[in-house]
Amino acid sequence: MDSDRRFVITLSCPDTTGIVARIAGFLADAGGWIVEAGYYSDPGTGWFFTRQVVRADSLPFDADELRTRFAAVATDLGSNTSWTVTDTAVAKRMVLLVTTEAHCLHDLLGRVATRELPVQLDAVIGNHEALGDIVRAHGVPFHHVDFPLPGNGPRQVAREKAFDELRGLVDQHDPDAIVLARFMQILPAELCAVWRGRALNIHHSFLPSFVGARPYHQAYARGVKLIGATCHYVTHDLDAGPIIEQDVIRVDHGDTAADMVRRGRDIERLVLARGLRWHLEDRVLVHGNKTVVFR
Amino acid sequence: MDSDRRFVITLSCPDTTGIVARIAGFLADAGGWIVEAGYYSDPGTGWFFTRQVVRADSLPFDADELRTRFAAVATDLGSNTSWTVTDTAVAKRMVLLVTTEAHCLHDLLGRVATRELPVQLDAVIGNHEALGDIVRAHGVPFHHVDFPLPGNGPRQVAREKAFDELRGLVDQHDPDAIVLARFMQILPAELCAVWRGRALNIHHSFLPSFVGARPYHQAYARGVKLIGATCHYVTHDLDAGPIIEQDVIRVDHGDTAADMVRRGRDIERLVLARGLRWHLEDRVLVHGNKTVVFR
Amino acid sequence: MDSDRRFVITLSCPDTTGIVARIAGFLADAGGWIVEAGYYSDPGTGWFFTRQVVRADSLPFDADELRTRFAAVATDLGSNTSWTVTDTAVAKRMVLLVTTEAHCLHDLLGRVATRELPVQLDAVIGNHEALGDIVRAHGVPFHHVDFPLPGNGPRQVAREKAFDELRGLVDQHDPDAIVLARFMQILPAELCAVWRGRALNIHHSFLPSFVGARPYHQAYARGVKLIGATCHYVTHDLDAGPIIEQDVIRVDHGDTAADMVRRGRDIERLVLARGLRWHLEDRVLVHGNKTVVFR
Amino acid sequence: MDSDRRFVITLSCPDTTGIVARIAGFLADAGGWIVEAGYYSDPGTGWFFTRQVVRADSLPFDADELRTRFAAVATDLGSNTSWTVTDTAVAKRMVLLVTTEAHCLHDLLGRVATRELPVQLDAVIGNHEALGDIVRAHGVPFHHVDFPLPGNGPRQVAREKAFDELRGLVDQHDPDAIVLARFMQILPAELCAVWRGRALNIHHSFLPSFVGARPYHQAYARGVKLIGATCHYVTHDLDAGPIIEQDVIRVDHGDTAADMVRRGRDIERLVLARGLRWHLEDRVLVHGNKTVVFR
Repeated sequence: MDSDRRFVITLSCPDTTGIVARIAGFLADAGGWIVEAGYYSDPGTGWFFTRQVVRADSLPFDADELRTRFAAVATDLGSNTSWTVTDTAVAKRMVLLVTTEAHCLHDLLGRVATRELPVQLDAVIGNHEALGDIVRAHGVPFHHVDFPLPGNGPRQVAREKAFDELRGLVDQHDPDAIVLARFMQILPAELCAVWRGRALNIHHSFLPSFVGARPYHQAYARGVKLIGATCHYVTHDLDAGPIIEQDVIRVDHGDTAADMVRRGRDIERLVLARGLRWHLEDRVLVHGNKTVVFR
Repeated sequence: MDSDRRFVITLSCPDTTGIVARIAGFLADAGGWIVEAGYYSDPGTGWFFTRQVVRADSLPFDADELRTRFAAVATDLGSNTSWTVTDTAVAKRMVLLVTTEAHCLHDLLGRVATRELPVQLDAVIGNHEALGDIVRAHGVPFHHVDFPLPGNGPRQVAREKAFDELRGLVDQHDPDAIVLARFMQILPAELCAVWRGRALNIHHSFLPSFVGARPYHQAYARGVKLIGATCHYVTHDLDAGPIIEQDVIRVDHGDTAADMVRRGRDIERLVLARGLRWHLEDRVLVHGNKTVVFR
Repeated sequence: MDSDRRFVITLSCPDTTGIVARIAGFLADAGGWIVEAGYYSDPGTGWFFTRQVVRADSLPFDADELRTRFAAVATDLGSNTSWTVTDTAVAKRMVLLVTTEAHCLHDLLGRVATRELPVQLDAVIGNHEALGDIVRAHGVPFHHVDFPLPGNGPRQVAREKAFDELRGLVDQHDPDAIVLARFMQILPAELCAVWRGRALNIHHSFLPSFVGARPYHQAYARGVKLIGATCHYVTHDLDAGPIIEQDVIRVDHGDTAADMVRRGRDIERLVLARGLRWHLEDRVLVHGNKTVVFR
Repeated sequence: MDSDRRFVITLSCPDTTGIVARIAGFLADAGGWIVEAGYYSDPGTGWFFTRQVVRADSLPFDADELRTRFAAVATDLGSNTSWTVTDTAVAKRMVLLVTTEAHCLHDLLGRVATRELPVQLDAVIGNHEALGDIVRAHGVPFHHVDFPLPGNGPRQVAREKAFDELRGLVDQHDPDAIVLARFMQILPAELCAVWRGRALNIHHSFLPSFVGARPYHQAYARGVKLIGATCHYVTHDLDAGPIIEQDVIRVDHGDTAADMVRRGRDIERLVLARGLRWHLEDRVLVHGNKTVVFR
């Protein structure tokens, strides 16, 4: 068996004495070699979180059997326990949603091509045809779905139809990550619910500053000295989902709003790529509207 | 004459062709040796800003004569021109306003004691006696002014009296900088007007995020991944004055609100010290609600 | 005439009184509207540097005439004066040199495709065929030149021939920037001289730390808490050319050398892209082994 | 019992299956409530490291009994195991060594005064009298020990005597941290050995760049774009001890060596304060010449 193969366990449950001992005891009894472990006990919520990485070749059984056995451990820890077991030998799958802004797309295509991101890119779906050629040049299927501007009557109907089509195209891949790489369309509540915990957005401001449209122009008007970007899970409450990662860069009086747009792209690319990597590596546990990120 | 002595000129006026030539020509004709120069032409407002540093020993006249002569140049550049000429041989003066939070005070006392900041600290005025001893140990006068909590009737009267006393204590020094080093009292509109462009505040968030009270607790509740601080000029519109400097540090899920308070102090200290230095060195030009900072 | 068109002037000469006035006077007399200006007087070397950006439509003549007239100004400022005048309407041209590491190439292809970098990419030359397909997918010519490993006798001859071929492929484009985007071959002294001031390298460490081979492995062995990258002009003295830009990211004990290699790519991409942009915008003036960067 | 009281356990030993289970099982059996836990398994050395924080009031015994019982666990994990158990109710003690540079001293005095650092400052020992007054104003004993310049014969004898005196003054406090806050004297090998793992130095460069004297002047000469500081444990091999923390700030061509000295102080203060805090909180485990820092 491949010595790089790992089983990744995540678990969250109400905190109490003995959780670590229970999980560690279970793994030790099976001969499991833990190569990475994160624990966090949140004093605010009284909740416990852990992520553990075990060498697959140290266990005498496979991922399915690990799931079966671990389910018993999780049950012992209470009915509110949530947990996952993933196998690094099974590639994660991803779908990207784009419009015409290409910088995040180019960046992710490059990272997929160089195998820097542990993911298989199944499809890119665009609101315009503009980015189709470069996607296909990377050997990735591109689908065009036209989204009419928001409105009433027939426009609303056409828009709902477009979201239905989008949903069909995405869901056929059952992806682990649905990345809004500057998609610029507000997802309907239903899709937010269906894709909950799997849809990641990159917002081009340091949230909660400058929610809504044209954040760089808002930043320019306010005269801030740093601009930022935020990678967060998509929820029905726009720009308010659980934050995975943020970062900033310095600007000054000499930067116009257009300069900020251009310079901000560097930080959008980075923040999205980091947040996405952590998501794909099962490092992000969501609780309420906050994330625990085991880096 | 001391070869380190400098005259610092700042000027802002509506932009037009030939301003740099006019100023540079004036200085060149007088033999002025420019050792530092910043120019900025703002395409948004059509306004021009400059800061120039001239060796005092390169000019055949003193600062007062320079002011007289430069006034003529400024007049040529239009009636909206504003300008200053300062002489580094004349020490800037500063008054600090504090409450009980000591970290910014300790930091500034240290920087003054080691002559890292080019300023004479004339007095510290505190809402409590708590910080009096350490201030006096540095050989700096400390004045205690008691500020009742905001309220109506007699409390309001007592509060107005306290602000009058504060104003008297400050204004007797005619300071170049009035620093609210975690003063935690909202200045009345009248003082904001009188001290306009000289009163600096340190706000413990990355504005415009988390205006108002307990910003670290707001940041904790939102689950942000960076916290920050903002040094800005005080205006009547709370937390909305022109921003001089901002910076952030990374936090994560393991940081409680109390951790953020503690860790934020490091960034408050730094941001205030940097903003204050730039103010004291005449590097900050205010236009509308934004600053041009010639670093 | 296009109102976005600019003439960019750079000049360096021994410092003396009146240089700014001479240049500004020249521009003002011609009606030149300066939209950006940087000045630096270096106390260490006694040298003066400036970069000025003028609206092309504010001058009654073209770039060639500006060069002719400005030459007279430069002559007045001494025989050691060096200067350039470029026209933003004339696209800069670039050639990339690569081996098999693709991250910087993907990044630059993306930035060229989105017109984020003001440059025309004329060709990519690779030591391996590996990256040919993605280059051609972007519509850019790719040339493969095989470089034998360093050695004596026939190998040395073959290697010299390869560098001759490389030089021919590059020089036919007379590029403004020759970017070693993880090229991993040491250029012979002759090419360093011919391409002086035009060849940019990205070194994967925070120079002068960890010169030479496998810098991330050196960093891992030393246990540093930050890793970095450096964009510098190529000189005959390996890893010692004038530094244009550097940046770092935080690592910790949990990062293996392989993690550092992966994470370092993010900072290599950014540092190279920033340094290259500044080079292309004529923001970088070299003096001795140091750079003045007018950002 | 105080509910904020904690027992902090650190342990390192050769890695094997079941260590976490052994420790966690021991704590769970005693009813221990783990509020913070860090684990690290180093693939390079095959070594395991952990730091665990337990609520004191969750255990039915005191720190001494915990030590006795934990010793048995540690013994089970092999003869190379090293471990510590500390009690946050017992204040850590610190001695500072200084010369004339005051910025780190002022910063640490402020942090001690505001109880930001969990430590009792027992004494400050200076090579000059200069900083005595401010130390005494903080109510801390100051001792002056004169260190002659390095040399031969009588000077060497006097110097050895001074180090003996220093050692006596330090060792009488048996401090947990001996901080060279810009002490600028090279400790003899014997003191490095005696104070091993307890003596922290702040070096004013981003090591391994610019070892030795006048690092800012070296940085200026090389033209780097970032300067840094390094907090490390003192070892006999100068500037080469295990690194605890590093950070950098951006400089540019306009910064003279003197500017770098001044600006570098901000980063020296911060890096020393952070490294010291982690040391005092038993977050730093040393293995060979590297540190594991459980932040």
